[in-house]
Amino acid sequence: MAASGPAIVLVGLMGAGKTAIGRRLAARLGLPFVDADHEIEAAAGMSVAEIFSRLGEKAFRDGERRVIARLLADGPLVLATGGGAFMDNETRALVRARALSVWLRVPLPVLVRRVSGRTDRPLLTGKDPAVVLGELAQRRYPTYAEADIVVDCADEPAEGTTSRVAAAIAAWSPPLKVHVALAERAYDILIGPGLIARAGALAAAVLPRRRVIVIADETVAGLHGAALAKAFDDTGVAHTMLTVPAGEQSKSMVALSDLLGRMTEAGIDRRTGIVAFGGGVVGDLAGFAAAVALRGLPFVQIPTSLLAQVDSSVGGKTGVNLPAGKNLVGAFHQPNLVLCDTSVLATLPMRERRAGYAEIVKYGLIDDAAFFAWCEAHGEALLAGDAETIAEAVRSCCAAKARVVADDERETRADGGRALLNLGHTFGHALEAEVGYDGARLLHGEAVSVGLGLAFALSARLGFCAPDDVARVRAHLAAVGLPADLGMLNRRFSAARLIGHMRKDKKAEAGRLTFILARGIGAAFVSRDVAEEEVAALLADEGCEP
Amino acid sequence: MAASGPAIVLVGLMGAGKTAIGRRLAARLGLPFVDADHEIEAAAGMSVAEIFSRLGEKAFRDGERRVIARLLADGPLVLATGGGAFMDNETRALVRARALSVWLRVPLPVLVRRVSGRTDRPLLTGKDPAVVLGELAQRRYPTYAEADIVVDCADEPAEGTTSRVAAAIAAWSPPLKVHVALAERAYDILIGPGLIARAGALAAAVLPRRRVIVIADETVAGLHGAALAKAFDDTGVAHTMLTVPAGEQSKSMVALSDLLGRMTEAGIDRRTGIVAFGGGVVGDLAGFAAAVALRGLPFVQIPTSLLAQVDSSVGGKTGVNLPAGKNLVGAFHQPNLVLCDTSVLATLPMRERRAGYAEIVKYGLIDDAAFFAWCEAHGEALLAGDAETIAEAVRSCCAAKARVVADDERETRADGGRALLNLGHTFGHALEAEVGYDGARLLHGEAVSVGLGLAFALSARLGFCAPDDVARVRAHLAAVGLPADLGMLNRRFSAARLIGHMRKDKKAEAGRLTFILARGIGAAFVSRDVAEEEVAALLADEGCEP
Repeated sequence: MAASGPAIVLVGLMGAGKTAIGRRLAARLGLPFVDADHEIEAAAGMSVAEIFSRLGEKAFRDGERRVIARLLADGPLVLATGGGAFMDNETRALVRARALSVWLRVPLPVLVRRVSGRTDRPLLTGKDPAVVLGELAQRRYPTYAEADIVVDCADEPAEGTTSRVAAAIAAWSPPLKVHVALAERAYDILIGPGLIARAGALAAAVLPRRRVIVIADETVAGLHGAALAKAFDDTGVAHTMLTVPAGEQSKSMVALSDLLGRMTEAGIDRRTGIVAFGGGVVGDLAGFAAAVALRGLPFVQIPTSLLAQVDSSVGGKTGVNLPAGKNLVGAFHQPNLVLCDTSVLATLPMRERRAGYAEIVKYGLIDDAAFFAWCEAHGEALLAGDAETIAEAVRSCCAAKARVVADDERETRADGGRALLNLGHTFGHALEAEVGYDGARLLHGEAVSVGLGLAFALSARLGFCAPDDVARVRAHLAAVGLPADLGMLNRRFSAARLIGHMRKDKKAEAGRLTFILARGIGAAFVSRDVAEEEVAALLADEGCEP
Repeated sequence: MAASGPAIVLVGLMGAGKTAIGRRLAARLGLPFVDADHEIEAAAGMSVAEIFSRLGEKAFRDGERRVIARLLADGPLVLATGGGAFMDNETRALVRARALSVWLRVPLPVLVRRVSGRTDRPLLTGKDPAVVLGELAQRRYPTYAEADIVVDCADEPAEGTTSRVAAAIAAWSPPLKVHVALAERAYDILIGPGLIARAGALAAAVLPRRRVIVIADETVAGLHGAALAKAFDDTGVAHTMLTVPAGEQSKSMVALSDLLGRMTEAGIDRRTGIVAFGGGVVGDLAGFAAAVALRGLPFVQIPTSLLAQVDSSVGGKTGVNLPAGKNLVGAFHQPNLVLCDTSVLATLPMRERRAGYAEIVKYGLIDDAAFFAWCEAHGEALLAGDAETIAEAVRSCCAAKARVVADDERETRADGGRALLNLGHTFGHALEAEVGYDGARLLHGEAVSVGLGLAFALSARLGFCAPDDVARVRAHLAAVGLPADLGMLNRRFSAARLIGHMRKDKKAEAGRLTFILARGIGAAFVSRDVAEEEVAALLADEGCEP
């Protein structure tokens, strides 16, 4: 990152070296260096200490914010800010939007030594620097931790620290972002490595207060719970973690009821944030709990499976299952923020990564033939764990889904709209209902994969698409190791029983079945009048019992 | 109702006597009589039969609707419509909005005799009138039943029928109406006697299709279930009734889960309407079930207790209790329609009527001193069952609440807004939590009644209102037989335990308690900083243990 990058704003306590490091950094990057306090003094015609004593802190902060806004609007620079600037909510939001912030974190004894005996610090006059700085650190560090980059500075020559700051800036890249604009609420999906470590800073910016309840499945809590807890601790976000067993059985009314009881016990009020930390099951369960606890709490999603990152992050659908079928109870509840940390995908078993990949392929099949071709070219690299390929796929799918959802927030459009996202799902849900939501036997993404193949086979049977399309879809799914037809599930199915499940699907209306069919790859459409006999005949062809 | 009343539209099958009765009725009422078919023929310059055969039915219905709209805009008249006019959804909506509709229901054999041998009925040409009329009756009667008035006509001289139609019109009075205009949805609350008998007609007009699941408590189902079933049968609304035990214990996660299972079993799709038929418990439970089943179904409320009619009809708050407290889980879900049938209040035990009356008094205490004075004057008549007094009280309270809710739909306003509706409820909920939601021991309205007294006593203690106000509030509550202080509950309470319950109230934020206090009768305000010690001291004064 050089002169073409954004403005760089240095934050930290007095004595952290913002001016000394800032000047050197600016010289190296070929940028102007500006000290915000000097600019304020020039604009006001008096010293910072005078402004404080004559006009009060509020007037100073307002002036400081105006000066920083003007400087950031003028173009790239390195800007050293006063220690209190980043504590102001509006100023911090301004810096977040327009600059890259760097916190120079210096051990307290070093700071005390540096500032002792100086007389130009109004906050220190007549007080013990160690006490004052200790109190300031306690109050400010959780907020400084919201800076984009944190550099730990030892008591070393300024050139050394400058080198490490420059290296951190060069290594930094912003997460990919998908902005979801809905009537009810607009929010961002951030995608990239290392976002869990930044969760406190990012969540604090969108939540009404620094208090969250994290709902995680036991596996995810074990693998990544400590990292998330540290992120919240660093930024002063009080947190309680509640776990549920991994697997679809946690998406039940009993589990919901139990969870709501534990949330109440842990202490919630209307400004407590709920953080869903896990795969789709946890996202649906925790999201529904957030929707109904006290009639609605703020909600942050941190999906940790590939499937959840591409599919559950957008749309606000939350819910649990009933014995009669999947997702029969729920609510639309939009998150305030979604963090897709792509680093955690490395800890996923390959089978689960593949299952998530089925939903990625789905987006190509719905309305983007070029993206399906991209999948054919990059699917293997993605499943092998290539970080950039994964992030790009997640971004593409979230953006595609966000477009669809923004257009049809409550799934009320009869023709197309959100319904298209169910490509492969009428068959898929029926398979899951039949097998019994047991991930050991059949993952949701695997059911969808078979469902995609069947949806194309049904489309071909009804004359909507070419048999070649069916073959191409199934070939790609099979090539990456996904089940592409019923035969690959090693189980005999009954057509009548599967159709029975489809009749209970909540997309069914007045007894008619709804299917998403396709006129070709990237050309899906909604059909509400497929004769059950055609479905039965297809399933017989695919090897089902009657 | 005479010439100053609305237009009168006669509907019915061919041969029902719309023209013969219409002419006589118009003469008696001093209104012009118009036959819609004649007007259409005059406008089109051809006969109805010709329009049908040359332009098709759709063109005819469009023209018919334009003609009827013009006639209704011209001022009061008696209008005879063709048998198909009222079947057209748009025409029917037009008639509903601008006229009083009367269905002349004539036994089928009489109709057959009247039309046999006539040649001016295009629908009958070359067919057996008995078959044609039988089929028409089956198809049309459920929709004709939506007419405001149904008159059963025997085979009698036209003058006799005309007398009975005129008497029915004179006896008819429209229900009182409160229109609730919200961002999410606008809907009407209708208030008056006999609305259950009209429930099918009124619900069919606001639901996406003629299929409902009625959720009732066992007591209400036993008393009024048959009447509601008949109303739905008359208007061709398919219905299933599911019952839950009467009482607060049905407002639980277990009861919700069980109910959702039974709803799914009964068969629901996204256009199935849910009808809550009972008191506040059923309204909250059924409303929450409607909010979350398939992520949201259309919802009609028919509250049958005085408390539910005045308090639960407006606001969209639904939910169930957790062991830790009342209404801790729920959703905002606005109804499509609320029917407050004041006749059913006669079947309520006096103790429940009184409990509902506490919520009526509350509206006066919040912001309407004149209404509190009205209560002092009319409370006894209301509780004795005076129909007009009851309807007027329900209308006043619904309108007052609708104003508050429209201004603060999601209870997000910090100062005032919806929070004011909780006057008496911080204390009331604590009492209920302590006693255990057992209606036999303490009804919600009784808890609120004591709570109103305590809220005023706390206000006086803190210097906000005069001791005289406390005395006046308690005197009126006691005069109508409500408990006005803790002593009247015949139980010793612990101040610490009550305050413990208040801390769990979902209005509490970050440990602070919220109270609605008053500067006088009709001058309530929200206070979030009352010291717990003041509350403890008050409760001690009121006879609590520490």
